[in-house]
Formats: sequence, structure tokens, C-alpha cells
Amino acid sequence: MGIMDLKNYIIGNCKKVDQALDKLLPKATTKPTTIHKAMRYSIFAGGKRLRPVLAIAAAEACGGTASEVMPLACAVECIHTYSLIHDDLPSMDNDDYRRGRLTNHKVFGEGVGVLAGDALLTIAFEMSAKANAWPRYNHQAIILELANCAGSLFLVGGQVADLEGEGKKLSHKDLVYIHERKTSALLTTSIRFGAFSANATPAQLKNLTTFGYNLGLAFQVIDDILDCTKTSEQLGKTAGKDAAVGKATYPSVLGMKKAEAEATRLTKHAMDAIKAFGKKGARLAELADYLLKREN
Amino acid sequence: MGIMDLKNYIIGNCKKVDQALDKLLPKATTKPTTIHKAMRYSIFAGGKRLRPVLAIAAAEACGGTASEVMPLACAVECIHTYSLIHDDLPSMDNDDYRRGRLTNHKVFGEGVGVLAGDALLTIAFEMSAKANAWPRYNHQAIILELANCAGSLFLVGGQVADLEGEGKKLSHKDLVYIHERKTSALLTTSIRFGAFSANATPAQLKNLTTFGYNLGLAFQVIDDILDCTKTSEQLGKTAGKDAAVGKATYPSVLGMKKAEAEATRLTKHAMDAIKAFGKKGARLAELADYLLKREN
Repeated sequence: MGIMDLKNYIIGNCKKVDQALDKLLPKATTKPTTIHKAMRYSIFAGGKRLRPVLAIAAAEACGGTASEVMPLACAVECIHTYSLIHDDLPSMDNDDYRRGRLTNHKVFGEGVGVLAGDALLTIAFEMSAKANAWPRYNHQAIILELANCAGSLFLVGGQVADLEGEGKKLSHKDLVYIHERKTSALLTTSIRFGAFSANATPAQLKNLTTFGYNLGLAFQVIDDILDCTKTSEQLGKTAGKDAAVGKATYPSVLGMKKAEAEATRLTKHAMDAIKAFGKKGARLAELADYLLKREN
Repeated sequence: MGIMDLKNYIIGNCKKVDQALDKLLPKATTKPTTIHKAMRYSIFAGGKRLRPVLAIAAAEACGGTASEVMPLACAVECIHTYSLIHDDLPSMDNDDYRRGRLTNHKVFGEGVGVLAGDALLTIAFEMSAKANAWPRYNHQAIILELANCAGSLFLVGGQVADLEGEGKKLSHKDLVYIHERKTSALLTTSIRFGAFSANATPAQLKNLTTFGYNLGLAFQVIDDILDCTKTSEQLGKTAGKDAAVGKATYPSVLGMKKAEAEATRLTKHAMDAIKAFGKKGARLAELADYLLKREN
């Protein structure tokens, strides 16, 4: 499974995820059309589908399939997209561009932007409830996992801590607190959903949780590094934004060298956690490696 | 069960709902504290707990209990509160006061206001997943009900249609379209959740659904009437707001007399639907009557 294989794997699964999202979301012609156009605008805005692809790879590592995890994979993508729409609002990060396109509220107005996020958050629970369930990973477990991850203790809590940290001198520990919540939690749930869908053993679930946690933090460290080393054009979003608004980042807190070492260290922790999967974990390892070396 | 009895019934159940919400929500001292303070600020802002009380009365009409429906009753109250926080935002209805107190974003800032709404929407699904379930009304059915009601086809869709209708000449049909979604859907789900929690028969559920739909619309007609006949002080929120922003209301579309007749007609439809419950439906009938005659 070389790099070309991985690219094809990602492309192939992205296509499946796009098709599933297209089926699970109300059509753009469904009334009231504005909200459905707005939801679809951001869902089909060229996202990398990282979370769904990780969910699929995790499912496969546990002997499951892409089609079984698909409703859950779509759910985490809706949560991710909602969080970006709300983060981009003028009252939060005030971003005009995302992935090289105007942000949702710039196209549809701020009110509809808020509501499109609300609707995507809501439909994520609908999608999760539509997934097949197992005795150990029943609908109650699925919904509690998603609500915990998306709620005030994790995703929303991380964004609050992020907003409150602006312009303040943060420690490494403060940064980890924010990004465990803002980034790592949803990546971890994506991967755990893969395990859920494949009726994983408790040991498999535990290893995948460790993998997701460390990969999620590594992902954020790299995001911070790219934000201060790449141009807006390369990133498809406003570069250097963190420094401009006085947001602490891994490079600004640790220095660039230590930030790079931290990304490598976290990725290694992630890799170690999936050794128990042997060859079945190869795809997850490839994905982790790919994320470490990405350029945008 | 006279009017004093009803008042005591409402007060007693409000207390139970408040206690349950206090238990189910993270404490104000839980980190990040800002978000939990913001969530609690609006949840404990003197709301009438109409939806939870209706859920309890519906449960009892089907032979269930307040304690069995409580997690679902709390869930609908969280959805209601989230929708108020987001509706009050400057990018939507731009309201500074709600129930005589500053709105969430006026106290905590707009960013946290958006996030407090997001967190309440999310925790509503957690609460729903914590409810006891029955074979017919399992967690899948519960979550699909809530997601459908809160999502782009109903609650969010109604708010979009409401925003888009501002300054336009709407027909009676347009108004019904908005308020079936914006008001009636969540009232109906509250009442249906009562039925779910009591393992209601399909016939009971059908009658309660008709009751909820008509009561919900009646509630909105009365809201519109009060908005143009009462003072801000009497309402605890800015009166005459609808007319000021060019929002169509039942009185502005139908005229005051016809709007009052419409409220009575809808309430009668609601009453008829619960006749089959006999004496067990008396509390629901009293609540419907109380809502028709309310002054704020």
C-alpha cells in the first residue's frame, strides 16, 4: 500500500462519502430552499473528508466495512462542517474565506449561517440514529458518544477556551486543553465510530481511542505550523491569522523546532497504539503519516 | 381540578423540571465555566416550562409518570432555550431582553451566545439518549423524532422562513407554514415524547399529535395577539416588535377579530382530539384552556 494506493483509497472513499451525504441531506430544492442550499454549500465545499476516511479505515481495521460505518462517517462530517461555519462567524474568528471559497455567512448572511450550522449539528444526530447498531454499541451509546464529543465539555468547550485565550499568554498545557477539545475529540469520535460500526472488542476500541487522541493533537500542531509557514493561497484560507489576532499556537508557545518535534512525538504515540492491529492497521498508519507530511 | 389546582400542578412540575435540569446540566463551576454559566443563565431565566409540563401531562394521560418522561421533558426545554438564544442574536431578531432579563448574547457576548445555543442543542440529544426506552419507542425513534422536529424541515426551517418573510406581504397559508415549523413542531414533539415515555398505543399517539399540532398553532396566534395588545412590561419582552420589523402576524394578516376566532377554533380542534382520553385527558384540556386565556 504505497502513496499512490493511499491517494486512490482517499479519493475512492471521499466519493462514497459525498454520495452518502448527498442522499442523507435534504435536496437543495426542498423547502425552505435557503437552508438546504446553505447546508449543502458548506458540506460540498471541497473538504478533505479526513474524519469520514478515518472512520472508514478504523472500521476496516476492526473487520468492518465502509458502507456499515457510512451514516456515522457522514454524521461526524456534518459536525465538523457545522463547527467550521460557526467558528467562521464575525462574532468568533471572523473569516471570509475557507478552502478558497467565501464562508457560509458571507454568501447566505449571518442569520442563515448560524441556522445552517444548527441544522447540520441536528442532522448529525439523525444520521447517527439511522446507523445500524450492535448490542454493545447500541443507539444510546452512539448518541451519547456524539453528544459528549460535540458538546460543552469538548468541541464547544474547546471553542470557548480558544476564544477566551485570544491575546493571552498561554502555556503548553493550556494549548493542549484547547486542542484536546477543539480538534482531537471529534477525530477520536470519528475513529471510535469506526470501531462501533464493526462491533470492535473493548481492546480494539481502547487502542483506537489512544490512536485518535494523539493523531488529533498531532493534526493540530501541524495545522498551527502550516498557518505560519504557508501562504493563504497554499492553504486555501487566510494564513497567519493566528498571529494576527494574538492566538497562541504550538510554534508561538514552543518555538518552531519543538513544535515539529511534538508533532512527530504525538504521531509516534498514535502509531504505537495501532501496532496491535498488525497489517489490518496499515491503512490507519498510512493516514497518520500522510497527515504528518501534509502541506495544507 | 379547578384553576388553583392547575396552578399548583404547574408550579409543582416546574420545580421537578428545574431540579432535573440542574442535575442534567454541567455545573457552573465545570470548566470551561463560561459556557456552563451561559447555558444555565438562559435555562434558568424564568421560562414557563410549558413544553416539559405538556410532556408530563401527556405522559400521565397515557398512564405514565413525570419521572419517566423527565429526561425527554428536559431535552425539549433545552431545544426551546437554544432556539430562543439563537433567535435573539443581532443577526436574527436582535432582541436585548427576554423574560425581563438581558438576552444571552448581551450578557456573554455574541460568540458565546452562539456557542451556548449549540451546547444546549447538543445536550438535548444526550438527555434524550438517557431516557428509558420501549421496544416501540426505542432510542432510535426518540432521536429521529427530536432531530426531525429541531432540524431544517421544522424548527430551523421555520426560523429561516420567518427571517425571509420579514417585510413581505404574507398570506394566512404562509403564516401557518412558518408557525407549524417554528412553534407547533416542538410543542407536538413535547407531547409525543410524553406518549413515548408511557409506551402509548398508536391511537393515543395519533390523538396527542393532533392535539399538539393545533395547540401549537393556537399558542402562536395568541402570542401574536399579545405582542400587539400588551406592553413590554406586561410581556417581559419588547412588545410591538413584530410590527416594528415588518413581520406578518395573525392579527396583521387576518385582522384582530378573525385572529381571536382562529385561536378559539384551533384550541377546539385540540380539545376534540383528546376527548378519547376521557378524564385522563382533563389536565391536558386545562392546560390548553389556560394557554388560550393567558395574558403573557
